[in-house]
Amino acid sequence: MNDLPPSPFDDHYGLELDEATDELVRGHVAVRQELLQPVGLVHGGVHASVAEALASWGTNVGVVPEGKIGLGQSNHTSFLRPMSEGTIHAVARRRHGGRTTWIWDVEMTDDEGRLCAVSRVTIAVRER
Amino acid sequence: MNDLPPSPFDDHYGLELDEATDELVRGHVAVRQELLQPVGLVHGGVHASVAEALASWGTNVGVVPEGKIGLGQSNHTSFLRPMSEGTIHAVARRRHGGRTTWIWDVEMTDDEGRLCAVSRVTIAVRER
Amino acid sequence: MNDLPPSPFDDHYGLELDEATDELVRGHVAVRQELLQPVGLVHGGVHASVAEALASWGTNVGVVPEGKIGLGQSNHTSFLRPMSEGTIHAVARRRHGGRTTWIWDVEMTDDEGRLCAVSRVTIAVRER
Amino acid sequence: MNDLPPSPFDDHYGLELDEATDELVRGHVAVRQELLQPVGLVHGGVHASVAEALASWGTNVGVVPEGKIGLGQSNHTSFLRPMSEGTIHAVARRRHGGRTTWIWDVEMTDDEGRLCAVSRVTIAVRER
Repeated sequence: MNDLPPSPFDDHYGLELDEATDELVRGHVAVRQELLQPVGLVHGGVHASVAEALASWGTNVGVVPEGKIGLGQSNHTSFLRPMSEGTIHAVARRRHGGRTTWIWDVEMTDDEGRLCAVSRVTIAVRER
Repeated sequence: MNDLPPSPFDDHYGLELDEATDELVRGHVAVRQELLQPVGLVHGGVHASVAEALASWGTNVGVVPEGKIGLGQSNHTSFLRPMSEGTIHAVARRRHGGRTTWIWDVEMTDDEGRLCAVSRVTIAVRER
Repeated sequence: MNDLPPSPFDDHYGLELDEATDELVRGHVAVRQELLQPVGLVHGGVHASVAEALASWGTNVGVVPEGKIGLGQSNHTSFLRPMSEGTIHAVARRRHGGRTTWIWDVEMTDDEGRLCAVSRVTIAVRER
Repeated sequence: MNDLPPSPFDDHYGLELDEATDELVRGHVAVRQELLQPVGLVHGGVHASVAEALASWGTNVGVVPEGKIGLGQSNHTSFLRPMSEGTIHAVARRRHGGRTTWIWDVEMTDDEGRLCAVSRVTIAVRER
């Protein structure tokens, strides 16, 4: 994924992108102390950030070549199972690729494959 | 707010809590390079993280004294206006304080007071 | 509210509009047997429908005079307290009135003023 | 599906259930005049109602035999493509079946199979 532009915040919390097409994006984050909230669980903002990043990447893979840009419009993340260690494994699948909005479902699992968070992310497609 | 336990991820991206009651929580984040996404705007995950943090703090102000704990269940953040500099000013107001769930509305504005993001955050209240 | 065009589905489930500006819309629905789900509570779809209607009305009060139209884009309704009788009292307040999207918060209370459901509704503004 | 208890509101707007397990629920609604909003499109509340119904049925298929009941907690419906005629075809798939909450994704398509609305519905599981 070396040809992607740098994303400072994603680097800051440690997202690694593994695959990015306009239909499927995968990435992971190694859980570290600095990603936790006060009682030692991964902060929900980390899961939301991962979902936002993957959906944005995938949309931009599709729309940037057409001279457009995808910008986050709505991110709805549900937290199902707390994590405190290991790796967040994330997969974003496109559900809708319209002229003005793309919608993605993102699943985040732990090292045992258990579903820990799901996100519905809407990306607005605009002229650059 | 010196009596609050540390929240490593909130420290990592730079959240400052200004006020926290069980009905209203305020905080702010100074925008820095490391909070941006590839095209120079504040990453949506930052706004989602701020909302998650404020809603969690406020709920825990209310329920920890009763021997319970509030854990994020759902975070729905809508992005209205991109930010690239200045400070994110955030206010969370409780909309519902039930036995099993609390619901918060969070507004995030820029230095000119323009609304940049709004969040609806649901916190589950559980026995410790 | 006699100058508004008829809305067949809103008539079908019994919405009465009480006030509609581009910043605030109020309405109510008398609970009847035909609005219930199997265990005798008001069906969540009724609350979602009321919220959708109010947010759409308010947006169209604002944008139709400019030759545009508001169409629902996202409706996120949270159910806080079940209702089985009485009247649903609904108030929609505009949170954002942008060029391409308007966002409304809708609160629905029972006859005792208790909050039963809240909605965040996003309306897309488009050329007719 | 003759062994299911009647659901008055679902009957009122015309939902037909085609299949209901605790992992997958399918149903459909014939579009009629009384389901439309003022400009002749299917009212968004109809799509939200269908999603709510399917997710509730599926959850209750799973939890009622255990002496519990599923009640709607959150319904987030996104509208992708307006419909004005034909049939709404809906499929709900369970994404999470936890002790206290079940999460469903619902897709609604038109007669040509085009995706018109998607919902994320959270059902709370409670003791009866």
